[in-house]
Amino acid sequence: MELMRTETRNDGDAMMPIAPGRVAIAGMGLIGGSLARRLVERGCEVAAWNHRPAPYERARREGIVCVDDIVGLVDFHPDVLVLCTPLKAMGDVLGALAAAWDPDIVLTDVGSVKGQVRDDVVAAGLGRWYVGGHPMAGNERSGYQASDPRLYDGALWAVTVDGSTSYDRLLTMVRFVTECVGNRCIVLDDGTHDRAAAMISHMPHVVATALANELSDSPDRNIEQALAAGSWRDMTRVALTDPNRTRAMVEEDAANVAELLHHMARRLEDAAHALERRPGDEVRNRELDALFSHADPYRRFKASRIDSFPQRTLTVTPDAWRDELLASARRGEHITACESGTTFRVELRTAL
Amino acid sequence: MELMRTETRNDGDAMMPIAPGRVAIAGMGLIGGSLARRLVERGCEVAAWNHRPAPYERARREGIVCVDDIVGLVDFHPDVLVLCTPLKAMGDVLGALAAAWDPDIVLTDVGSVKGQVRDDVVAAGLGRWYVGGHPMAGNERSGYQASDPRLYDGALWAVTVDGSTSYDRLLTMVRFVTECVGNRCIVLDDGTHDRAAAMISHMPHVVATALANELSDSPDRNIEQALAAGSWRDMTRVALTDPNRTRAMVEEDAANVAELLHHMARRLEDAAHALERRPGDEVRNRELDALFSHADPYRRFKASRIDSFPQRTLTVTPDAWRDELLASARRGEHITACESGTTFRVELRTAL
Repeated sequence: MELMRTETRNDGDAMMPIAPGRVAIAGMGLIGGSLARRLVERGCEVAAWNHRPAPYERARREGIVCVDDIVGLVDFHPDVLVLCTPLKAMGDVLGALAAAWDPDIVLTDVGSVKGQVRDDVVAAGLGRWYVGGHPMAGNERSGYQASDPRLYDGALWAVTVDGSTSYDRLLTMVRFVTECVGNRCIVLDDGTHDRAAAMISHMPHVVATALANELSDSPDRNIEQALAAGSWRDMTRVALTDPNRTRAMVEEDAANVAELLHHMARRLEDAAHALERRPGDEVRNRELDALFSHADPYRRFKASRIDSFPQRTLTVTPDAWRDELLASARRGEHITACESGTTFRVELRTAL
Repeated sequence: MELMRTETRNDGDAMMPIAPGRVAIAGMGLIGGSLARRLVERGCEVAAWNHRPAPYERARREGIVCVDDIVGLVDFHPDVLVLCTPLKAMGDVLGALAAAWDPDIVLTDVGSVKGQVRDDVVAAGLGRWYVGGHPMAGNERSGYQASDPRLYDGALWAVTVDGSTSYDRLLTMVRFVTECVGNRCIVLDDGTHDRAAAMISHMPHVVATALANELSDSPDRNIEQALAAGSWRDMTRVALTDPNRTRAMVEEDAANVAELLHHMARRLEDAAHALERRPGDEVRNRELDALFSHADPYRRFKASRIDSFPQRTLTVTPDAWRDELLASARRGEHITACESGTTFRVELRTAL
């Protein structure tokens, strides 16, 4: 299958790459299917492939060009090709793509762990064309039948780069996220992304699992379950979802998760030792003061209700754009638009 | 203030104590106020006292007899007097009650930690009349203005006894919970209750606090907060509530919380060590298998949707009723009614 490349938008700015108007999606599950449908809704031309053609009939009705094999995605001549397949299928998919690759395409993905995806991409010889992507979107459902373009409403993407990423491809990816999908993004290196994901998702999943195991081992578990209320339900909810999926996610980010588990174990031990001192003991009071007040700035941040965020223009330089974009993300700024080839519109969204 | 004792219901069963029809409530916050209003709705005569008379006007309109001082609650000649005051006010309240006590009254409470309340009650010389109570009811609001009789809809009470508790007073308490409030109960000793509360509430609150502290200490906290989604929100929700209230709750149950924190720290360390082994390592696989499958029976229990629970009659004996009721609770049975002076209707509700 080969389609003519349609005319792409031209912003009249010589420094900006053409905005991506043609997108190929490999994998039409919840995340890939929702993305494809959203892109069609927003005026992009979208081709998609799935390992089983079950979603094709409905997808075609929804304006998606469905291709028979993965090479059909390359032949569609997309500006961006998004890998939405499971991590374990990535090797096969990348091998097939590499054999037919078109160097005009920017390759990206939606995986929740970035280091491993880049390793797979580089092993397939496609590293030069790759910019990592991880949209903060999803729910507990799965499959194209559960797809919903609104899944991406207001979503933030982590976009990941390394020392070999070309600035032009990064710009194409940022414009894809902000203009095609209509979302925000932050630009990180893989390691920073994967450490952050360990903090806010992978490690907490292990903690929730350990809580469920602790109750399971208790001779009074039926009494405990009877007394359990909102706090227990919230703390263990993620332990109830498919433990094999959780395990795979944790194993993909094993080193970062292990480091944070050591930290957490130390914090819990310290709290236990403080509670074992006699009531009124000076060290106990000091340590419990610290334990319970340490996150006060975080509590204040979470309690604040901000309707409009401060905006500004961020200018990057040719030699230091990676560090400049990472520093911007560390300040809590999110990119909402490319303003020119070297400037971005950013909103100060998450500054604790 | 002294009112005539109204005629109480008589079930025509010589072995059963009269069902409690008059109830006194000390403390008209969210829990006490909601309880008083529910009891009025269900046909009980209710007197209440609060340390400040602010709720009295509205409470009187809602059918509650408001008394000027705490001794007025004794003078009301209630069948049951329920302490709904904060734990830190318990000493003063108990002292005032002890000076005017009427031995026909069963004394109970709604505190979330039972051992300490009993210590205070015994210190005031009222241990003989006390049966502990802890309804699993509440929300994030507080005060009489937030009270709602429906807070108790379908609630379970932990009812606690010790070696000195008379069976007659336990029966009065069980009938109070099941007939007056219209709830279920399980009968425990204080230690079992407080260990269970540490498991499903107090220890998880410390874990949530430690998670919030871990993020607060991260140089990438703004990035982490940007990427945080449902799992992080649920795992840290209770860390955002008033940390002083959390600290007080944890300190009241310090020994049990400390023991469980040691267990959790060990579980997290074990998980970290497994993840630090090389992928494919036999020990790693075995330990991760155990970590992620251990709570499968709990997952199956939580996934089961049971509309009607098996019911049966539980018969207790004069010499062993404490152990028999505790064993019933351990099996996951909840008491829904007194059938006679020695038999209870129980439902198998939480059997993992």
